[in-house]
Amino acid sequence: MTIAANDPNLKSWIEVSENSDFPIQNIPFGVIKTSEGTRVASRIGDKAIDLLALFVLGYLDNLPFQRSDFETDALNPMMEKGKQGTRALRNRLSKLFSEGYEDLAKNDHHVQQVLIDVNEAEMVMPVKVGDYTDFYSSEQHAYNVGCMFRDPNNALLPNWKHIPVGYHGRASSIVVSGTPVHRPKGQQKPSEDEPPVFGPCKLFDFELEMGFVTYEGKPLGDSISTEEAEDYIFGMCLFNDWSARDIQKWEYVPLGPFLAKNFASHVSPWIVTLDALEPFRVSGPVQDPKVLPYLEYSGDKHLDINLEVSITPENSEEKVVGNSNYKFMYWNMNQQLAHHTVNGCNIKNGDMMASGTISGPEEGQYGSMLEISWKGTKPVAMPDGSERKFILDNDTVIMRGYSEKNGVRVGFGEVSAKLLPAK
Amino acid sequence: MTIAANDPNLKSWIEVSENSDFPIQNIPFGVIKTSEGTRVASRIGDKAIDLLALFVLGYLDNLPFQRSDFETDALNPMMEKGKQGTRALRNRLSKLFSEGYEDLAKNDHHVQQVLIDVNEAEMVMPVKVGDYTDFYSSEQHAYNVGCMFRDPNNALLPNWKHIPVGYHGRASSIVVSGTPVHRPKGQQKPSEDEPPVFGPCKLFDFELEMGFVTYEGKPLGDSISTEEAEDYIFGMCLFNDWSARDIQKWEYVPLGPFLAKNFASHVSPWIVTLDALEPFRVSGPVQDPKVLPYLEYSGDKHLDINLEVSITPENSEEKVVGNSNYKFMYWNMNQQLAHHTVNGCNIKNGDMMASGTISGPEEGQYGSMLEISWKGTKPVAMPDGSERKFILDNDTVIMRGYSEKNGVRVGFGEVSAKLLPAK
Repeated sequence: MTIAANDPNLKSWIEVSENSDFPIQNIPFGVIKTSEGTRVASRIGDKAIDLLALFVLGYLDNLPFQRSDFETDALNPMMEKGKQGTRALRNRLSKLFSEGYEDLAKNDHHVQQVLIDVNEAEMVMPVKVGDYTDFYSSEQHAYNVGCMFRDPNNALLPNWKHIPVGYHGRASSIVVSGTPVHRPKGQQKPSEDEPPVFGPCKLFDFELEMGFVTYEGKPLGDSISTEEAEDYIFGMCLFNDWSARDIQKWEYVPLGPFLAKNFASHVSPWIVTLDALEPFRVSGPVQDPKVLPYLEYSGDKHLDINLEVSITPENSEEKVVGNSNYKFMYWNMNQQLAHHTVNGCNIKNGDMMASGTISGPEEGQYGSMLEISWKGTKPVAMPDGSERKFILDNDTVIMRGYSEKNGVRVGFGEVSAKLLPAK
Repeated sequence: MTIAANDPNLKSWIEVSENSDFPIQNIPFGVIKTSEGTRVASRIGDKAIDLLALFVLGYLDNLPFQRSDFETDALNPMMEKGKQGTRALRNRLSKLFSEGYEDLAKNDHHVQQVLIDVNEAEMVMPVKVGDYTDFYSSEQHAYNVGCMFRDPNNALLPNWKHIPVGYHGRASSIVVSGTPVHRPKGQQKPSEDEPPVFGPCKLFDFELEMGFVTYEGKPLGDSISTEEAEDYIFGMCLFNDWSARDIQKWEYVPLGPFLAKNFASHVSPWIVTLDALEPFRVSGPVQDPKVLPYLEYSGDKHLDINLEVSITPENSEEKVVGNSNYKFMYWNMNQQLAHHTVNGCNIKNGDMMASGTISGPEEGQYGSMLEISWKGTKPVAMPDGSERKFILDNDTVIMRGYSEKNGVRVGFGEVSAKLLPAK
């Protein structure tokens, strides 16, 4: 499939700095808030593109959208038009902002209404999330956790290579990059022989993940195959699945993580469409044992997305503590979605599905402090001379991600959040 | 606290048959659909009360509602007015339909617009559920499961009496009573030594639960105490948490149930307000060991609600297979809500929280076929001569519930669903 907007030769008449995540080949979608209100936007370089203004000025004519799809505080109405609708919109934006296409470029008055410096716009939560599911699809992560808490010889649980294991998370507490998070309080069991205690979490961790956002699925009772899955995926974002390890350890048997996770998760503000990521497809790992037929797939369904996570102590410098890649996933999105719906579970417009912590095979490629500090046994030296086993109050955690090929870099910007002390 | 609408001496000028779940002391809320559209309603006896019609006719003047709160397909807009708003509305309805109050009763033309025979109205899903949480709060159920799958001497897991254990479920697949459900397909592991197989679930079960629906909570980061909890609870319904036991067994370690549950859950269509249930409060069990301070509560926070569950094989008679009571809960709603938010997790208008299977101490009081048939070892004889270990295709499962005191019965009607064969 050729998508016009992905042409690596395109240049925009908007200035795009070298190494920007947002060349004209990206064209992500987000929601901005300025003194003029909240509305749907895209981005090229350091300019947010006000889609409401574009619509009002007539530049989005003959597309299946109405004003209220852009004059709103979430991408959901726009996404209701499905993949064909959003693809046509992205292609239109690509055309409007391409070098050589001057209808808009030459109209200074229009350009002023449409382009906003990204520093002057507040990014708000891009999607009203209906249901949120978190998977556990990185083999190295599952292996590392298994080694630490069970047995290196039986690190992966028996179901792991048969099932893209996942669980339901909390949608209400997914917030956008920049929102501060308070250290959660909860029950912990520091001593085997003593009753549990209540207080601020002591082992506060991030999980380096990516999320994908869905279009409206099929009716309840129907399934989506691995082949159909991409028709139901709008785009992706960075996802920080904060985890309170001590709370998790005490609560999670037998029904899974709950308060250890649901106090907050952070997403990056720009949703990069699956269309924009097409050029970065790569093959996945050989799956052995062979998966059941409903999980089989053909073609390259993994994505080469470089990921990094850093910690910035207060009043200090940033330190990158992990470099991973989305291609390390054992289970791809197609398999996750096919599994999720194989029992007839319905997905809705605006659901969020996260990958689970993405860890690579090398030590520097781990996606959580639990793994990076190996349960606290290998503290990480910080630029200010301090050490980190887990995240301390007033640390800022930043995750970044981008794909690059043929001189085109398509990225996600960042998801950043500062940990404030417990309330 | 005295709630006017709960006065046991009230009678309605609408006929209410003996043993009706819907005397004037109930005044539940639901959403009805007729040829005239979809709108919010209440119910007395066998009459649905069209709240949109009442509003348009001016009977709801001087209350904090607008037309769009009733001219809609869910209770959420009405619930946005909070406990004070919905309490005032219920009290107004109580007044309008009480014997002796004749403004409406004497106006035949108005009565015709407002009252609809319940058989002529389709009940639709009453609430747009944001997040759904399922607890695991019945001790006998947790004990029974522990006995079957672990060890009768250590049946309860170490955290069970310290934590109101819960997990996030799937909101999109919660449907209203009467919606058929298909037997789900999924992975099972019938033999320890063989790889998993894929196919229709073989151990299809119900779970007899009750759900409660919340008002908008506090901002992310804040907690709701056991004392404040009732201000955030709108009302309750019957909840059938269908469970595919064989799928669950293979998938649930380590992150909890997923496809075994998320294909469908059923709720009863009328939400009975917590206000209407006030008269039926009873004390709960002594909690030993002592709970942590944030889980302590004072006063009677449990509710005496009789529950029953039945199976009707196709073309046969109904057979009641379990009689339980909501008062058997170890953890009450106040504790559940305090626990859920103690880490700062935010709850929203329209969240649904279910109790977990409610089983009583006696054998006839179990709330799932897993327990009733004791893992299939004690089949239940049906009126048509067949046996049930679990639910068979074309069986209809019905759950009912009501409270009764001082000659007043406040009930939930029923949640009913037929199991269709796998697609």
